[in-house]
Amino acid sequence: MASSKDIILSAVLNLLSAFAFLVAFAILRLQPMNDRVYFSKWYLKGIRASPRTSGTFVKKFVNLDCRTYLRFLNWMPAALRMPEPELIDHAGLDSAVYIRIYLLGLKIFVPLALLSFAVLVPVNWSGKSLEKTEGLTFSAIDKLSISNVPDASKRFWAHLVVAYVVTFWTCYILYKEYHIITTMRLQFLASENRRPDQFTVLVRNVPPDPDESVSEHVEHFFCVNHPDHYLTHQVVYNANNLAKLVEKKKSYKNWLTYYQTKYERNPKIKPKTKTGVWGLWGKTVDAIDYYTTEIEKLSKEETIEREKVMSDPKAIVPAAFVSFKSRWGAAVCAQTQQSSNPTIWLTQWAPEPRDVYWNNLSIPFVELNIRKLLMTVAFFFLTFFFMIPIAFVQSLASIDGIENKLPVLRPLIQMEVVKSFIQGVLPGIILKIFLILLPMILMAMSKIEGYTSLSSLDRRSATKYHFFILVNVFLGSIITGAAFEQLQRFVDEPPSEIPKTVGVAMPLKATFFITYIMVDGWAGIAAEILRLVPFIMFHLKNTFLVKTDQDRQQATDPGSLNFSVSEPRIQLYFLLGLVYSVVTPILLPFIIVFFAFSYMVFRHQIINVYDQKYESGAAFWPDVHRRILTGLVISQLLLLGLLSTKNISKSTPVMIALPVLTIWFHIFCKGRYESAFVKFPLQDAMVKDTLERATEPTLNLKAYLKNAYVHPVFKGVELDRPSAVDDEENNPLVPTKRSRRNSKSHSEEGV
Amino acid sequence: MASSKDIILSAVLNLLSAFAFLVAFAILRLQPMNDRVYFSKWYLKGIRASPRTSGTFVKKFVNLDCRTYLRFLNWMPAALRMPEPELIDHAGLDSAVYIRIYLLGLKIFVPLALLSFAVLVPVNWSGKSLEKTEGLTFSAIDKLSISNVPDASKRFWAHLVVAYVVTFWTCYILYKEYHIITTMRLQFLASENRRPDQFTVLVRNVPPDPDESVSEHVEHFFCVNHPDHYLTHQVVYNANNLAKLVEKKKSYKNWLTYYQTKYERNPKIKPKTKTGVWGLWGKTVDAIDYYTTEIEKLSKEETIEREKVMSDPKAIVPAAFVSFKSRWGAAVCAQTQQSSNPTIWLTQWAPEPRDVYWNNLSIPFVELNIRKLLMTVAFFFLTFFFMIPIAFVQSLASIDGIENKLPVLRPLIQMEVVKSFIQGVLPGIILKIFLILLPMILMAMSKIEGYTSLSSLDRRSATKYHFFILVNVFLGSIITGAAFEQLQRFVDEPPSEIPKTVGVAMPLKATFFITYIMVDGWAGIAAEILRLVPFIMFHLKNTFLVKTDQDRQQATDPGSLNFSVSEPRIQLYFLLGLVYSVVTPILLPFIIVFFAFSYMVFRHQIINVYDQKYESGAAFWPDVHRRILTGLVISQLLLLGLLSTKNISKSTPVMIALPVLTIWFHIFCKGRYESAFVKFPLQDAMVKDTLERATEPTLNLKAYLKNAYVHPVFKGVELDRPSAVDDEENNPLVPTKRSRRNSKSHSEEGV
Repeated sequence: MASSKDIILSAVLNLLSAFAFLVAFAILRLQPMNDRVYFSKWYLKGIRASPRTSGTFVKKFVNLDCRTYLRFLNWMPAALRMPEPELIDHAGLDSAVYIRIYLLGLKIFVPLALLSFAVLVPVNWSGKSLEKTEGLTFSAIDKLSISNVPDASKRFWAHLVVAYVVTFWTCYILYKEYHIITTMRLQFLASENRRPDQFTVLVRNVPPDPDESVSEHVEHFFCVNHPDHYLTHQVVYNANNLAKLVEKKKSYKNWLTYYQTKYERNPKIKPKTKTGVWGLWGKTVDAIDYYTTEIEKLSKEETIEREKVMSDPKAIVPAAFVSFKSRWGAAVCAQTQQSSNPTIWLTQWAPEPRDVYWNNLSIPFVELNIRKLLMTVAFFFLTFFFMIPIAFVQSLASIDGIENKLPVLRPLIQMEVVKSFIQGVLPGIILKIFLILLPMILMAMSKIEGYTSLSSLDRRSATKYHFFILVNVFLGSIITGAAFEQLQRFVDEPPSEIPKTVGVAMPLKATFFITYIMVDGWAGIAAEILRLVPFIMFHLKNTFLVKTDQDRQQATDPGSLNFSVSEPRIQLYFLLGLVYSVVTPILLPFIIVFFAFSYMVFRHQIINVYDQKYESGAAFWPDVHRRILTGLVISQLLLLGLLSTKNISKSTPVMIALPVLTIWFHIFCKGRYESAFVKFPLQDAMVKDTLERATEPTLNLKAYLKNAYVHPVFKGVELDRPSAVDDEENNPLVPTKRSRRNSKSHSEEGV
Repeated sequence: MASSKDIILSAVLNLLSAFAFLVAFAILRLQPMNDRVYFSKWYLKGIRASPRTSGTFVKKFVNLDCRTYLRFLNWMPAALRMPEPELIDHAGLDSAVYIRIYLLGLKIFVPLALLSFAVLVPVNWSGKSLEKTEGLTFSAIDKLSISNVPDASKRFWAHLVVAYVVTFWTCYILYKEYHIITTMRLQFLASENRRPDQFTVLVRNVPPDPDESVSEHVEHFFCVNHPDHYLTHQVVYNANNLAKLVEKKKSYKNWLTYYQTKYERNPKIKPKTKTGVWGLWGKTVDAIDYYTTEIEKLSKEETIEREKVMSDPKAIVPAAFVSFKSRWGAAVCAQTQQSSNPTIWLTQWAPEPRDVYWNNLSIPFVELNIRKLLMTVAFFFLTFFFMIPIAFVQSLASIDGIENKLPVLRPLIQMEVVKSFIQGVLPGIILKIFLILLPMILMAMSKIEGYTSLSSLDRRSATKYHFFILVNVFLGSIITGAAFEQLQRFVDEPPSEIPKTVGVAMPLKATFFITYIMVDGWAGIAAEILRLVPFIMFHLKNTFLVKTDQDRQQATDPGSLNFSVSEPRIQLYFLLGLVYSVVTPILLPFIIVFFAFSYMVFRHQIINVYDQKYESGAAFWPDVHRRILTGLVISQLLLLGLLSTKNISKSTPVMIALPVLTIWFHIFCKGRYESAFVKFPLQDAMVKDTLERATEPTLNLKAYLKNAYVHPVFKGVELDRPSAVDDEENNPLVPTKRSRRNSKSHSEEGV
């Protein structure tokens, strides 16, 4: 068990490393040559331009103004200065709500910490149970924890009362926050400009028709069943091959640029390359010629493939984006069932065009169900049995394993340095690689499950990752042993024993989690702000590939909030805070520092750096809410288990009411707020429609929507959203006459 | 343990009692004077009329034709003769689908019984484990059960294979049945005549408005948000007091008739009554005068109350039935969210007028949630702790208890007969009374939970009752001990132990359940066909109250299928069948007899007797499906537990796949079919609308719907559905012009 001195040492070390990251950041961000890395958001917005026009050549790259270095921490107040409405406008609602999760952590834990320090710390400290027990080693932290209270003491009533306060305070703050976020979302949706997804519904599982093409079938179905509201539709092409070709061509172009630049800088040597994989083997050829011809070949292939996709009816998948004349019409279609067979003509709100995950639009109903079953089973095994393949790979990577498989390497392996590396570091690295790959594995599983938008893929992966962390980090740290051993234990132990086992082990692990928070939380967040990987990538690309300002723009990777990875990690801190708020309150300040520091860092990042790939309007909030409540219930059950071992007879009935109330609170909040994140109310749609009809009576919606939902490869370089174009047709937004235009719009409609 | 002889004796006794019921029924139903009891459905339909016009006076009451007695069982083939489409037409889809549950039992268990008898009975019989164990008493039934197979025998593979066959066969049949029922429901809905509920949506939680009445507010809201589709609406009055007065008046009228008849038959004695409760005490008065004046008083009160309700704005609850111009408009409104606040303007399909539960239409959202929480907690305690109050009452009803509380009764109690009655029979009767009252208690709980239609109340009560039976009859019989003791045990035992404990006890209880099936199933169903209570009630009323044929009509209680009570009981038989099909196949024939006999009896009853109170279009099927699958999962877990005690190492992984697959199958079926029972697809609505517009272009829908959703007390005696009336207004069903009639319809609209 770590003593208080160890904790202090660790805290100092981690604070120092965090400080080092911050200083490095403060220096690097002031250099003009790094400007694009640390202010990429502003470049994307076109507000900032590089290189700075004034000054000498050196000044373009290095900041020589000493005064700016003195104020090296001034990004912190700057990050906090932008008011929230402006932030939403600047970075989108997703980002603004995301950082509110950290704020929520502060709102919950600052008052709870004050209460716990005022009530529980004195109660625990004066318990003196540990001092009386002889032969026990304990630290100052343990003296402040519930372990220091003697069995059957009346002092436990203080803990029970605090547990009630924790529950009610958390629920109260969560309720208020849900209310605020819902209001923000509704305001955001209401104040939004016209967007294609407001008028559009994604229709999947269009049934095959022997006489009609998919496009005709969709057209006819919606003309008949939504006669007053149907406007147009866009079929979905299976352009996966084409997208691959485009991607390949882009990579070849990069190589071509690289070799051309190389040649320009050193015209004496003609650059060479090899034709094999990664240019490592194969015939040696002239690099510039090779890539020029390859790009020409690819261009031809691309043209052929493009024509094939556009003309082949088989390249059209049984899905379509159907647009309506009004938001009301789209809201109605998205929320209702179309056919008596609920597995065909499935409608849902279209994700915004950037958010569509094109590969999953054409999965039949039965296949979708089977995929979900398989992925559920696979995820179960991944969570509980991932250590088995890891251990197998680790055994392969042992000295004997490598000697057996690859006898060629024997002389190498028998060197002392390599040997100790393999024995000491490799197993840890293999586990670490798995943990780094894990979010990608989970994302791949979510993709197989068939979600149709990037935002839902992110949410789904986050759910999986949260469960994985819960089992393998939280429970795995408290009860030692691999997950499948725990599983066995949970099956073989009575349900009342599990909270006891975990609850009793819990106070002992407080010091471990304090260290964990400092390493993963404090130093990890400080590393985040330094953006080391994009920093290096930018400078590499900038040196070898960049020719024009547009190239430089593309070389910058602004990154984005990675919801599927970072949100489950925050949840771990919520869980730790809730669990230890009654048991070991000394943990709370560390969590509060984490939340405050993260809030500042991520607020800075979303203002200056990140560029979100999509905007879902905070659709993830119900998940965040549910997971915090899950953490709350876990904390209640563990405390119940812990107290039941302390010989206080009345604690169980008093404690059992808390999870019941919490679960009820969850159901209540779900009924009260969740639909705001799933459905779009008709009243709001009507208000927006009426307003638009009054302010823009001549809008041609059909032209506006024409290319909104085209697969990105067909858009080429123009990735801007289509703007409204007026043409000779009447304004189709105002449905004053019953549409007799169906046949007309049908003849107009085409691939 | 019961021996085979006991079983045979019990079977003979029960068969005899069932046979006696059937003979009594056969004789009674042939008497013309009982005609209304046993053929009430036909009287309600107006096809049959009494008394028979031809024949002598005696023939009116007693059937003297001997030949008819010889064919006394010919109701059985007659009951099976009516084809299903005609049955649906005659008795409604609810009844037709309800008896298909019994048919489903036959479809599942007849092939399974054949398989089990062909495979498992020989395997078990030749196992000879019981014979080898000395000092063990066992019956022939045990020799046919899994107990007769020695530990670690390879014979268990036969049981595993049969368990797989049971699962797949049950799922296959359930899938096919779900498909058939869904098709039947959709056909039924499509072929239905015009009904008010097709056009109507129930709107609850209308928010209060300071400037407008509820009616105006509803009108304005739907005119704005469903401008092309809104037709009219009907506010809901809080007529609970009025309904009570009407009920009271009706009862007084019955008493008046009774005394008048008495006086006519014996004009010498003026009948007297007392004014107190139930006429037992109070002042003695002339009965006819007393009731005449009371009725007059009540009539006046009723008129005042009626006027008060009609004029007082506070008597209007914040709910309304909103009707639309087309089924499409109603389908859209029912399936969408209206307001950004999901707790106001809640819309759902209107139940058909007969099905509305008027008292629950005005419960606010928060209160509804609190009610549900309280009822969930109450139901939990009812299920697991009901034995505690029962035991308390039983102790009060003991000799000592009565002597203490009511010393007056001491001489009475000390009589030997009374003493033995109190000691021997009273505790049993108290428990029995509770069990008879239980469905009513559960129904009252469901009413408190706030469901708005009788059909949903029935479904909800059935869910509760099913759980109660599962815990207290099924588990309670296998593991002896009160439910709360079991609960304690389940909490304290490891989850893997529970299926083991129950699974091991299971084969031993087979004989008990066989007896249970014969008593509750066979004899109970035979008693059902005799309809003893309605039979007695009819003859009592017929003697004392009936004057006209209309009175006689009202005196007949045709009864109805009591879904909330009888469906959970059928589920017990499904559960027993599934559980014992692998363990003790000998139980299956008893269950098959139950299903076959019940099918015949209930088919007869729904053809000749029952008159359903509402028609929900088989909306209960998803519940039936889910409960059978619950039974299947329970049977798999119990078999898993049983086999894990038999020392066959590989059984657990083989068995664990079954519940996973079953749960997946449930999710799959839910996605595939459930929406057909919840939503109404727009395509079908459009087809019906278009058809109606073509065939009845002059229909005045507004007049048709005008009084459809009026509280029954306002309808007086006319409980017929309103018929279509043509008036000067244009046909509002054909929305060819955008409605500018809102202001007009608004001025027309009134309370």
